[in-house]
Amino acid sequence: MTRPCDILIQAACIVTQDAMRTVIEDGALAVTDGTVLAVGPREAVTAAHTPAQVLDLGNALVMPGLVNAHTHAAMTFLRGVADDLPLMDWLTQHIFPVEKHLTPDIVEAGALLGCAEMLRTGTTAFNDMYLIQDATYRAVDTAGLRCLGGEGIFGFPSPAYPDADAGLALVRRLHETWRHNPRIRQCVTPHAVYTTSPELLQRCQALAEELDLPLHIHLAETTTETAQCQQMFGQRPVPYCHGLGLLTPRATVAHAVDLTDDEIALLASTGAAVAHNPESNMKLASGAAPVPQMLARGIAVGIGTDGAASNNSLNMFTEMTSCAMLHKLRCMDPTCAPAQTVLDMATLGGAAALHWPGLGQLAPGCPADLTALDLSAPNLQPMYTPASHLVYAATGHEVRLTMVAGEVLYQDGRFTRFDYPALVAQMRDVRRWVLDKLGR
Amino acid sequence: MTRPCDILIQAACIVTQDAMRTVIEDGALAVTDGTVLAVGPREAVTAAHTPAQVLDLGNALVMPGLVNAHTHAAMTFLRGVADDLPLMDWLTQHIFPVEKHLTPDIVEAGALLGCAEMLRTGTTAFNDMYLIQDATYRAVDTAGLRCLGGEGIFGFPSPAYPDADAGLALVRRLHETWRHNPRIRQCVTPHAVYTTSPELLQRCQALAEELDLPLHIHLAETTTETAQCQQMFGQRPVPYCHGLGLLTPRATVAHAVDLTDDEIALLASTGAAVAHNPESNMKLASGAAPVPQMLARGIAVGIGTDGAASNNSLNMFTEMTSCAMLHKLRCMDPTCAPAQTVLDMATLGGAAALHWPGLGQLAPGCPADLTALDLSAPNLQPMYTPASHLVYAATGHEVRLTMVAGEVLYQDGRFTRFDYPALVAQMRDVRRWVLDKLGR
Repeated sequence: MTRPCDILIQAACIVTQDAMRTVIEDGALAVTDGTVLAVGPREAVTAAHTPAQVLDLGNALVMPGLVNAHTHAAMTFLRGVADDLPLMDWLTQHIFPVEKHLTPDIVEAGALLGCAEMLRTGTTAFNDMYLIQDATYRAVDTAGLRCLGGEGIFGFPSPAYPDADAGLALVRRLHETWRHNPRIRQCVTPHAVYTTSPELLQRCQALAEELDLPLHIHLAETTTETAQCQQMFGQRPVPYCHGLGLLTPRATVAHAVDLTDDEIALLASTGAAVAHNPESNMKLASGAAPVPQMLARGIAVGIGTDGAASNNSLNMFTEMTSCAMLHKLRCMDPTCAPAQTVLDMATLGGAAALHWPGLGQLAPGCPADLTALDLSAPNLQPMYTPASHLVYAATGHEVRLTMVAGEVLYQDGRFTRFDYPALVAQMRDVRRWVLDKLGR
Repeated sequence: MTRPCDILIQAACIVTQDAMRTVIEDGALAVTDGTVLAVGPREAVTAAHTPAQVLDLGNALVMPGLVNAHTHAAMTFLRGVADDLPLMDWLTQHIFPVEKHLTPDIVEAGALLGCAEMLRTGTTAFNDMYLIQDATYRAVDTAGLRCLGGEGIFGFPSPAYPDADAGLALVRRLHETWRHNPRIRQCVTPHAVYTTSPELLQRCQALAEELDLPLHIHLAETTTETAQCQQMFGQRPVPYCHGLGLLTPRATVAHAVDLTDDEIALLASTGAAVAHNPESNMKLASGAAPVPQMLARGIAVGIGTDGAASNNSLNMFTEMTSCAMLHKLRCMDPTCAPAQTVLDMATLGGAAALHWPGLGQLAPGCPADLTALDLSAPNLQPMYTPASHLVYAATGHEVRLTMVAGEVLYQDGRFTRFDYPALVAQMRDVRRWVLDKLGR
């Protein structure tokens, strides 16, 4: 007696990231209604199902889609516009002068490009914070990924609203507009402690509780932020936010670099998750987050790419490599941040940072969000340990197929839901618009 | 009046890395007899030549092939066999137990896989040191890259020779055998200070001088090496080697991590080049080489991947990213190791480390060693500054074509000189052989 299923995927290797971290050589995975029905040895799973479609991927490795725990997808239109600068020069002379002219069309084009890059490199879900978020959601809805997103809330006007009251009202409207979309979820995202008042942070927290949404904030990114927070509010960022009631199990804090041991313990006690951004922290010389210490305390840590304007890519595979290397160097210990731990952060840790259970693993009942890598690529030959290859050898461009909710969104150079060459043509106009705004 | 040429390459962008760091939008490059004849604007160069073949690469970026300043190409067969271990456990429990059974066939297969990976990711020349180097040269000769190579010289038996006398005799034989191959050059490569005697190092130096060859040695990689050198020879590695006469303009020292300011000044005064290996140094927790300080002193610094057993890839694009990020973090300064400096290291710095003038740039008279990247890849869209994209955004897998001496060696998934699928099949047997030797 066989069960019907929509798709049966067969591959040389399946890395499930389930509770036992099961790795299946010569495996198969049955998908129905966007959900994993079964995963196991090819023969057994194939024999047990009657699929509407068979996808034999050959010498490929199938794994859960990676989860990007912190990014600003739309900023992809500013990739590499300025680098190698002190943070404040970069922001005030290159980023802000463009962002003040931001339009929904630019945001939508940038976010769609970000989605294309994420699908191309095996990411299926991401935690986003930016401006004019409605336009980002349209891009996400076009491309088909999952997104937890939030309109950045500041204590001053943004391109999307004239004041904080209007900003919070916009969050409500976005929630109303998008709440029935199964792939887009809303989050309350106060930007940072240095761009908000204590009252505004408390209003954000109250809104998150009222609507039962996660809350996402940049926190403890640099020693400069710490100094500013101490000067403005008399406390370091983590105790300051804790005092305002912001650190709860619904919170995800991005960066968490400048932390004392006591603050790590405090963070752990609150149940908040952390989005770690190794490449952004290195490239902007923010420092090295104490990730092994956070993990040891039981904090859920995901990995984020941050925005392409500072990283300069949204590639979770190279981000995993950087994560492992950063912590080995920081601890001067090659056993630190081993491959399986880093892979866990980029999958299950990401699910925790997005407050979206079921993501980051391929187990029965979980969303069929997955990616498949070509194992015959020279840099994946030979393969002794899959986790090692995924963290240390893969670049993300070995990806041949990316699927969300059982739907193929990228395969062998082709995006299924949108016209990628037209997007590339559009980016030429966006580039000219940016250079014009910068007077270059 | 037009000049005949073998190939005319046209592309949306040419990054020449010439003395002026000229970048040409909508350019063309004429090649004859394996050498660059002309490079410039598409219209002018096209009008001035009568090519036997035109290669219009469309929306591509053409640049000099990257130069890998330090690797062990054959070790690719051990990629990911063991990770996340203390150096000595990794070596004694996983690497040495396999290497003691090493055969020419295994070395040749591993080196050919390494060459495939390098061509796939835009590297055209590399500085190699390993065992049974004759087999590596056969692979290099098959694949078509350029290689400066050396048989690792130890003060004890190796799989290639019973004692140091025989080792040095082998270097002479290798030099005789391969000296007329235009793409393979010989080097004298004493392994390290802790695996050789002072006498053996001096004999290596004398041989290098006699045959007029470069000399390549691992040096100052870790604080452990420094302690060993002090204990065995009463000096730190750099002054020890200097005292033995090893540091000259013909020398390339790999790693150069554990250096004092005085040792940086000493190195600079000798004219020796440095091969910097950022990912290997991070992954093995060796530390961060003081590269900005070395560059400031005028030392020629190239970038190397080290071997795939420790890196775990031979990808110079991701290595450039890691290089830039490592030094920004180490100096806590985002202006440190800017993109153009890092690109210079991976091209012109590599040419210096290989003691092979003309490599690493596309200027008239230079070898036609180049690679072309697909600019329509999502992670290279949009493009404001080519050097930024090459260092921060590219992964190497955007490479569509790699050419050495005017000959296409890789194009759009196909290696032109060897049967890649057969090599993948062979690697399955090599993997089984390795697991057998490790008793797994």
